[in-house]
Amino acid sequence: MTAGPDEEQSGLTALARGLSAPKSFVDASLAAPVPGTIRLLGGIPAPEALPGEAIGRASAQLWQDPDAVIASLQYSPARGSEALRDWIAKREGVDPSRIVVTNGGMHGLALSVLTVVERGATVAVDDPVFPGFLWALEVATTRILPVPVVADGFDVEHLARRLATGARIAAAYTVPDFHNPAQVSLSASKRQALVELAERYGFYVIVDDPYRELRFAGRDQGVAAFHQSDRAIHVNTFTKTLGPGWRVGWLVLPDHLVDPVIRLRNRLDVHTSSVTQAIIERLLTDDPQCFDRIARGASALYQERARVLIDALREQLPGALDIVAPEGGLFLWPRLTDDTVDPTVLFQRAAAHGVVYQPGEFFAADPRQRSSDRHLRLSYSNRTPEELREAVRRLALSF
Amino acid sequence: MTAGPDEEQSGLTALARGLSAPKSFVDASLAAPVPGTIRLLGGIPAPEALPGEAIGRASAQLWQDPDAVIASLQYSPARGSEALRDWIAKREGVDPSRIVVTNGGMHGLALSVLTVVERGATVAVDDPVFPGFLWALEVATTRILPVPVVADGFDVEHLARRLATGARIAAAYTVPDFHNPAQVSLSASKRQALVELAERYGFYVIVDDPYRELRFAGRDQGVAAFHQSDRAIHVNTFTKTLGPGWRVGWLVLPDHLVDPVIRLRNRLDVHTSSVTQAIIERLLTDDPQCFDRIARGASALYQERARVLIDALREQLPGALDIVAPEGGLFLWPRLTDDTVDPTVLFQRAAAHGVVYQPGEFFAADPRQRSSDRHLRLSYSNRTPEELREAVRRLALSF
Repeated sequence: MTAGPDEEQSGLTALARGLSAPKSFVDASLAAPVPGTIRLLGGIPAPEALPGEAIGRASAQLWQDPDAVIASLQYSPARGSEALRDWIAKREGVDPSRIVVTNGGMHGLALSVLTVVERGATVAVDDPVFPGFLWALEVATTRILPVPVVADGFDVEHLARRLATGARIAAAYTVPDFHNPAQVSLSASKRQALVELAERYGFYVIVDDPYRELRFAGRDQGVAAFHQSDRAIHVNTFTKTLGPGWRVGWLVLPDHLVDPVIRLRNRLDVHTSSVTQAIIERLLTDDPQCFDRIARGASALYQERARVLIDALREQLPGALDIVAPEGGLFLWPRLTDDTVDPTVLFQRAAAHGVVYQPGEFFAADPRQRSSDRHLRLSYSNRTPEELREAVRRLALSF
Repeated sequence: MTAGPDEEQSGLTALARGLSAPKSFVDASLAAPVPGTIRLLGGIPAPEALPGEAIGRASAQLWQDPDAVIASLQYSPARGSEALRDWIAKREGVDPSRIVVTNGGMHGLALSVLTVVERGATVAVDDPVFPGFLWALEVATTRILPVPVVADGFDVEHLARRLATGARIAAAYTVPDFHNPAQVSLSASKRQALVELAERYGFYVIVDDPYRELRFAGRDQGVAAFHQSDRAIHVNTFTKTLGPGWRVGWLVLPDHLVDPVIRLRNRLDVHTSSVTQAIIERLLTDDPQCFDRIARGASALYQERARVLIDALREQLPGALDIVAPEGGLFLWPRLTDDTVDPTVLFQRAAAHGVVYQPGEFFAADPRQRSSDRHLRLSYSNRTPEELREAVRRLALSF
């Protein structure tokens, strides 16, 4: 039962050997955090924003309905249950035939990558980028073309110039709504420009949209541009509204990608749990207002927390940070204004004072480009207003 | 939104293009089955063998426990929840560190293939074989070395001879208990011989064991030989005992494969649903006798159905079929004794008379080897005794 390092490697596929050890969201200095540390880490929904009671009721109804019990415990279609796909399709404004239910957003990203990103191909990605996508990408390639995320999102003109001068990509990846980590949203005109670029050059846009329902300010820039293009794959999930624990999400696919994705599902895991789909379907359809109410309640909670966090930062650290008020989502991405502040030292001092966050460098897609290093990603979603104020007090002590 | 065949192919990865359209368990002649057709297809658990009421109780307890609700709706470890892994490890007789919870058996097979089967490598497989494994294998290779399944399972000596004369494989795949479709079990001595061969030649044994709990006769040949080898991956699932709809199974891995598989999980789908794990964990641990009772109840039901089917075949089709009484599982694999009977014609006549089953040719791993063609796979699991007797009456009319 023992195996030396050589033997450990020898039996593994190139794919398995190529997967880096997962970077943690938690720095090594946090292996032993000081007692009472406040964590502003991760895009974790607030427990009080998740509909525990409504789920309990939907679940109880399910297990009291003999026909539903039988259906839930048996195999179901690879593309997802019909009623759930219908609900999603109506919300997305597309034909149900284009919906494939997934095991959450990361699963949707992995299915997309395995279907349209050839091994060793180049993929354009947000910079800063959600690191989870770079990990998912490792199942196919590690060749990336970083594209800056600016005030109105993914810099489509930058990508256009790179393509015009010969760069070739299999896909472009962006989070269009309430970007992780940069909190901005992609403007409607740039959504259209991005899919036009994809159609012209023959690549796919992988649209990662888990925060879309969590808007509390500003105007929806819409997803029709993506849904009308046969070069866009729209990845969404119930993770941020009903909870990550479900592992239930969906893809909106162009028609010609539906069968290839289903064929892949048939190999990888057959279908998403019939049980989780049945409970969610009952939750969403028994009361047609339910989902909007959940999303509105969560958005209001996150709006309040973002406000508390920003107020505290402005009060306790006046001028130290450039802050843009978010219009939705779970993250604040302030920038250090004083170039003499060393972000690594700041992070270590903050940890010693009992507050941790994700340093900006963690999200850099281009290691040569140091702009992310000047940012902090502060997640306000699952901390109470009191915790947020105390976290800022501790952060202020660290400057 | 329209795409011609060329365009459809051009954007797909070699992986996606290499996945064959899934063969159905249902022949084309069944697109419009005669009304009232009795289906002896698929390894589908009997609804009455699945513990719907106990699940309803476990689920109700879960959603009434605020701490459990919060935990179930949030992210959980990639390797699976601790309590569920502990339960599985105890049952398997291994350290919990070797257990990874999967989204069912097929997912376990796919993770195994992606981790240890290099692209284009050769894999030895049961012949006849569970076709689902050949589909899963397509994510890496289509080069197979068929190994006959004989009265005591996978012919290890056959494989040893092929290896001795120069064949090289990345893995060997077998269903050791109540084989699908051939219903036999691998003897204890051959289990040991197979892992010794794997250790000598440096390949992995992928042990697919979904029917293991469904024994109703004969002696357990044990899984210790697999668990003691660092060259065996043991794939199991709750599919046949608690229901396919859960999509919850597990791998027992050699120590050195745990991290590679977790790294792959981190990319593909993060973790198995916290909700399904929490419900199953509660079901299994609240009453420690529960799982054995479920498995015993299901086994007794399937034993009775196998008996009814065999009695009816012997009565209505005396001498027409070689029949071996199964010791467990969901399938009967009788062989046509009369070489003048054309199995394709028989199948079509049976369908016209309103009974369908899976013709043996569907399971052939080696298309040149015609021995599977003389078999019928009759699934007795989800048909009542009355249906089984009527199915045999209709089959008898078809000879």
